Amino acid sequence: MKPQEIIAKKRDGEILSRQEINAFIRGVTDETWADYQTSALLMAMFMSGLAQEEQNALTEAMLNSGERLNFSEIDVPLADKHSTGGVGDKTSLIIAPIAAACGIFVPMISGRGLGHTGGTLDKLEAIRGYNVNLSTEEFKETLKTCGFAMSGQTAKIAPADKKLYALRDATATVESIPLIVASIMSKKLAEGLDALVLDVKTGSGAFMQNLDNAKNLAAALCQTGNAFGVKTEAVISDMNQPLGKFVGNALEVFECVKILRGEIDKQMHQTLELSIELAARMLILCGVEKTVQSSKFKVQSVLDSGAALEKFRQNIECQSGAAEICDNPETLLDKNLIEVEIKTEKTGFIAEIDAGAIGESISRIGGGRIKVEDKIDFAVGYECVKKLGDRVKSGETLGVIFCRNKTQTHLIYKKLANAYKIDDGKPSGKFELIKEII
Amino acid sequence: MKPQEIIAKKRDGEILSRQEINAFIRGVTDETWADYQTSALLMAMFMSGLAQEEQNALTEAMLNSGERLNFSEIDVPLADKHSTGGVGDKTSLIIAPIAAACGIFVPMISGRGLGHTGGTLDKLEAIRGYNVNLSTEEFKETLKTCGFAMSGQTAKIAPADKKLYALRDATATVESIPLIVASIMSKKLAEGLDALVLDVKTGSGAFMQNLDNAKNLAAALCQTGNAFGVKTEAVISDMNQPLGKFVGNALEVFECVKILRGEIDKQMHQTLELSIELAARMLILCGVEKTVQSSKFKVQSVLDSGAALEKFRQNIECQSGAAEICDNPETLLDKNLIEVEIKTEKTGFIAEIDAGAIGESISRIGGGRIKVEDKIDFAVGYECVKKLGDRVKSGETLGVIFCRNKTQTHLIYKKLANAYKIDDGKPSGKFELIKEII
Repeated sequence: MKPQEIIAKKRDGEILSRQEINAFIRGVTDETWADYQTSALLMAMFMSGLAQEEQNALTEAMLNSGERLNFSEIDVPLADKHSTGGVGDKTSLIIAPIAAACGIFVPMISGRGLGHTGGTLDKLEAIRGYNVNLSTEEFKETLKTCGFAMSGQTAKIAPADKKLYALRDATATVESIPLIVASIMSKKLAEGLDALVLDVKTGSGAFMQNLDNAKNLAAALCQTGNAFGVKTEAVISDMNQPLGKFVGNALEVFECVKILRGEIDKQMHQTLELSIELAARMLILCGVEKTVQSSKFKVQSVLDSGAALEKFRQNIECQSGAAEICDNPETLLDKNLIEVEIKTEKTGFIAEIDAGAIGESISRIGGGRIKVEDKIDFAVGYECVKKLGDRVKSGETLGVIFCRNKTQTHLIYKKLANAYKIDDGKPSGKFELIKEII
Repeated sequence: MKPQEIIAKKRDGEILSRQEINAFIRGVTDETWADYQTSALLMAMFMSGLAQEEQNALTEAMLNSGERLNFSEIDVPLADKHSTGGVGDKTSLIIAPIAAACGIFVPMISGRGLGHTGGTLDKLEAIRGYNVNLSTEEFKETLKTCGFAMSGQTAKIAPADKKLYALRDATATVESIPLIVASIMSKKLAEGLDALVLDVKTGSGAFMQNLDNAKNLAAALCQTGNAFGVKTEAVISDMNQPLGKFVGNALEVFECVKILRGEIDKQMHQTLELSIELAARMLILCGVEKTVQSSKFKVQSVLDSGAALEKFRQNIECQSGAAEICDNPETLLDKNLIEVEIKTEKTGFIAEIDAGAIGESISRIGGGRIKVEDKIDFAVGYECVKKLGDRVKSGETLGVIFCRNKTQTHLIYKKLANAYKIDDGKPSGKFELIKEII
């Protein structure tokens, strides 16, 4: 079957058969389809959409384009969490140790940050020595030893997704629910999970700014996960401001260790709340707990006892990182940075925060990547002093930039200051972190 | 402006600005756009369509991607004819000599055949020695000497079109009216014409099988031509059977010479009728004649006087071809071919002919190209003995294959025989050659 025939069918809004979708993904993987043919079909898929059966067939074909992890010798539940990406979103580093402390194994394959969003691998690499490039054997060994392992996607897992994702990024075909679902789920299904908790972000710093789109994406992800025999649940969470206190790789790890140590301040509370919600859902999906209440209680107990922190320490040691950060989180912080306060000229209440603008600003000074090939400066970042709904007075500090020099400050100061909308009156709505469970 | 931003805009059905379209075509020409980005935008254009202003901007950008012919020193009207392609469509070889004999210059840049359709350059190369690769200077010299010149598209004319066409062919984005219009008109406008007559084919052997699509294409082509200051008119002509008597390169040239010599038989009459119609329209557009009646009379007179044949002879000499075909057209025919008759088993009236199947059959035995790189056998072809509406008796000959051997016969006999639908009763409709003038 010629690529043109498959492309033409989708172009005309018809439903592709399983065979046609397999031919497409085989062609992408063995490179018998030219990139320009692949991108033409991706655009046709973007514009025509995919039916549920096409969605499942695409996910399966992408999953089968590579190898699956095999944990058949492990007899505890295997679960993972996946977030659609946000600013200051560091919950993986808290949830995985919690789950491990509760007897669940978490084989977490993560990605890197791009644009305004961060990536778990980048955060982990802010820990001196931490190795995110584990072989399949090392990955398995780490998982068995400490209950969770965190590594990058190898070339062997869903190779078709790697190719498609790079093309989608270059051809404006990223924001398509069926293509996003196939991309996420082909990788997650390769982990051989029993359960998967999804954190679908919505708001100014999220990929899906609109709540309805986020709900649709969450529903499609859950439908696909469950269709493939993985118990899947999605939490729709707020991304109308950076999550928690810090944005920036080392600063975010610092926040996680502080939370695991129980040394929590007000701004960190959101991070804790979301981590507990997601971890509790994971325990229930795995059958370890029955109710949300009991599950949250269990999660809180492994935090309080220090068991979760202990799991994190074990994991850092397994993955060759500097585990002393668990005892002295301050060692994560670079003393050579300068701190610049963003001050408000207005008095009132913080009504809106452009989380995307904050994420992008930090990326621009090296905290993330504008382009894929950019190098990361793990130390730089931002502290969110004031959060949505907070009352502020003229001259007060909204946040603090941690950067290398004044040039960096000038580059982003204005954008950061403009990221805040301050109203005279108290905002009428509530800023709920958890929007919905799907 | 990033390619992704332009692609996303069209993907979302927005109207691209002239600047954005220029950036696209510049990127295609200087190769700063990757092929996969170009094909993604082509698919978005295919699916979203283009507004009139986008259509014009695209045509202009593609025109400006290369050089234009400059005939400012020539003070007679310059005109051309373009056909959307069909089977047995050989009118260019008759119209150009007629127009030249009537005092119009025809700088005709033509293409090659692909699939079921033929191409003027291939037909011309069936004339021994005929050179279709003229330099710009040779082209101009030929035009001045004999009133018309026929050559292939150089790399310098509308290079963006070459690139886009190749991609469209590989990505199922050919059949888009705005993309077709930009492709045709960017090349034709580069010829520096005063007038352009379009022959938009419709029917079983045409690109636009459906009459409404053909009308829409014709209207869009005329609108664009006129917007660029070229007087443009379109004739919608029937392609529900091969045009005239022969299909196949040398056989078609033979038919043209016979017509120019006035040695016309019944099956050739369609070819003559369409040639006269198109040539007459050209004379009117150029202001040489006022009414269709007087114009057709003028055309007939240069055929009757032998002036058109003389122009053809001059042109063949100018382009290094064997001009003796004008005196002995039989020298075009290869005596080594075998002739195989397609016979009908039914008695009745010819109700339908699949012209596309006939064109494709002849291509398969070397008369055309299935793939771009295929070599042509100029001699092979097909004679249409019976035409639409003709009464046939069981055992009678419908057509004759001119081929090299029995293997070729076996390859295509059945397809050719099945190309005819014979009904018991006389077809009620008329088979009109000229459907409409737009």
